[in-house]
Amino acid sequence: MLLAEGPLSRVELARRTGLSSTAVTKAARPLIDDGYLYELPPERTAPGAGRPVNPLAVAPDREYFIGLKISSDQVFGAVCDLRAGIRATAVRPLDDCTPEAAAALTAGLVGELLDAEPAFRSRTRHIGVAVNGDVDRDGGRLRHSGLLGWRDVPLAELLTAATGLAVTVENDVRALTVAEHWFGEGIGTEYFALVTIGAGIGSALVVNGQLLRGAHGVAGEVGHLCVDPSGPRCRCGARGCVEAIASTDAILAEVRQATGNPHLTFGEVADLARGDHPAAREAFARAGHAIGVGISALVNLVGPERVVVSGEGVDAYDLLSRHIQDAYAAHAFGAASRCPLSLRPLPWEDWARGGAAVAIQALFPQYAVTTTTGAG
Amino acid sequence: MLLAEGPLSRVELARRTGLSSTAVTKAARPLIDDGYLYELPPERTAPGAGRPVNPLAVAPDREYFIGLKISSDQVFGAVCDLRAGIRATAVRPLDDCTPEAAAALTAGLVGELLDAEPAFRSRTRHIGVAVNGDVDRDGGRLRHSGLLGWRDVPLAELLTAATGLAVTVENDVRALTVAEHWFGEGIGTEYFALVTIGAGIGSALVVNGQLLRGAHGVAGEVGHLCVDPSGPRCRCGARGCVEAIASTDAILAEVRQATGNPHLTFGEVADLARGDHPAAREAFARAGHAIGVGISALVNLVGPERVVVSGEGVDAYDLLSRHIQDAYAAHAFGAASRCPLSLRPLPWEDWARGGAAVAIQALFPQYAVTTTTGAG
Ligand SMILES: [Zn+2]
Ligand SMILES: [Zn+2]
Repeated sequence: MLLAEGPLSRVELARRTGLSSTAVTKAARPLIDDGYLYELPPERTAPGAGRPVNPLAVAPDREYFIGLKISSDQVFGAVCDLRAGIRATAVRPLDDCTPEAAAALTAGLVGELLDAEPAFRSRTRHIGVAVNGDVDRDGGRLRHSGLLGWRDVPLAELLTAATGLAVTVENDVRALTVAEHWFGEGIGTEYFALVTIGAGIGSALVVNGQLLRGAHGVAGEVGHLCVDPSGPRCRCGARGCVEAIASTDAILAEVRQATGNPHLTFGEVADLARGDHPAAREAFARAGHAIGVGISALVNLVGPERVVVSGEGVDAYDLLSRHIQDAYAAHAFGAASRCPLSLRPLPWEDWARGGAAVAIQALFPQYAVTTTTGAG
Repeated sequence: MLLAEGPLSRVELARRTGLSSTAVTKAARPLIDDGYLYELPPERTAPGAGRPVNPLAVAPDREYFIGLKISSDQVFGAVCDLRAGIRATAVRPLDDCTPEAAAALTAGLVGELLDAEPAFRSRTRHIGVAVNGDVDRDGGRLRHSGLLGWRDVPLAELLTAATGLAVTVENDVRALTVAEHWFGEGIGTEYFALVTIGAGIGSALVVNGQLLRGAHGVAGEVGHLCVDPSGPRCRCGARGCVEAIASTDAILAEVRQATGNPHLTFGEVADLARGDHPAAREAFARAGHAIGVGISALVNLVGPERVVVSGEGVDAYDLLSRHIQDAYAAHAFGAASRCPLSLRPLPWEDWARGGAAVAIQALFPQYAVTTTTGAG
């Protein structure tokens, strides 16, 4: 709570968490002893308001975390402080997309990041890695990634061997959602969703304050909701998925076919749409509509407080956003429509920061408030 | 856990709940003292397996609960024991669908149920009511029900005044889901969903063992997912909702129009479909497809362990089920498709039992294992 919401007194912490004051004081002590928390000077209080209190605050520079995003052709890295503030970044091209090559490249990238400031090397113990695909977070394994073409890779083990640091691996969309829930627009929400659009379309959901993982590891697959029974075939085999209509590849393929020009780039397609080319405009309108319908399904089923829509297709935001909002407004049901959508671009630093947020989250179980039980 | 899973030793309870043995023993004591739990005779244990243990069991006849389902033209009631076993049932027609008339009718119905066995009157303290619509469970109010035509009704207060018993009110689909999660196919699942089909199409979801309520009170609205952008207009105003294609009314309207016969009943329409009438068959095929696509959306987004599909349209099961299963199989994504669908009819007793399950659940917070906290 202090990470997310800033300095608070012990009394206020107790009120907001529902813990007893004694429990808050006991939980804070080891965190103060270890330098993660410190006491601010007493707040001025109104005359007669009781004794002054020392709010507790997080010491953001107590420890640094390296966040990584491994994509098929690049590895992005960021050094973040304890509140996920980005302190340094670096990128390297990945020529050979194998786990071994990625681990070797990562070792170099991490070294470069740790050398950026003297304090980084001495105060960094933990890496968080965001990757596309199905991740076994507890086991540190990437079960399968279509985009990377990897299957059953012990990624945490490989990267620990290469860097000497502790490593936590998480699915990239879930990592981004953790960052947003702890340190961004999701702060303080019990129900929250983040949707990413671009080459793929995915989402992750927070329910009752916790990341939704699904009984079989699958959840938040908004890209594979069927929104049009006569829609195009998706790479998953089904027909009419959001992703088959609205991914950057799907938009590009449609406009290439409509124009008979197989050499168009996505940027050129976006320019055509801005220049009022009917087929290009129509492709973006259909894509935005499909995304908006997919998000309305998520909202009608799960009922989040807010949804952040973010994506790499930054250049096309102006072409998509109105259609997304219109379709969402048309299909959100009843009070669920009170959930606002925030659309915004997604720079690659945010992906790397997602990895760091997962590493920060992984630090705290050792300080968790444990529960002992008795009959009520 | 004992309610759902039957007799267990304290050691086994501790193992399955993650509580300490001491905590289990402390939690069990007041429940034994109050007669809700009792000790079974010691189990025979293998030689050398340590001292024999006395498993704990629920005493199902310690208390009875009345479950009610109020519909627009009938009130259904059931007396259930502590494990939601149905012990008596009764139905009365509701001629005047107002809250006052329903309360008066309910008082008579409850009296009839309590008179069915001598023990019922002395051991029943609690009514659980299942109603269509948006329910404020904590406040005991029905905020709005389209089917009943009621708005902001203090239903718990009205029924307590009429019957003298404590009353808990819950949305009917959520009540059914509680019954199924605690006492039916959902036992032991952390992620579970129930979908109801018929005059309306709805669902409720259990996530991390808890009923999903949504930040704005809306969740599980599978009936208002858009599955066809060119589909018919729904009563909610949007186009292509599952309910606009697959409710009994939607099927009926479509076949009436296709045949030019506005007097057909739903039973006649089902008979036409069984007799291979093309328009009638097609209407059920489209309906089943829409329901299957809606369920696949739920499964792809939330990832339940299993989904129960249940409905009043019992007579039409043979006409819908294959299409539901086929569309679900085609659109469930990856490992999410491991989630099985069980389709089965939904007799009205089940709705009333749902109300009773909510009342049983409401009894236990007073015995809940409370947590005291300290730093770990
Ligand atoms: Zn797909
Ligand atoms: Zn609708």
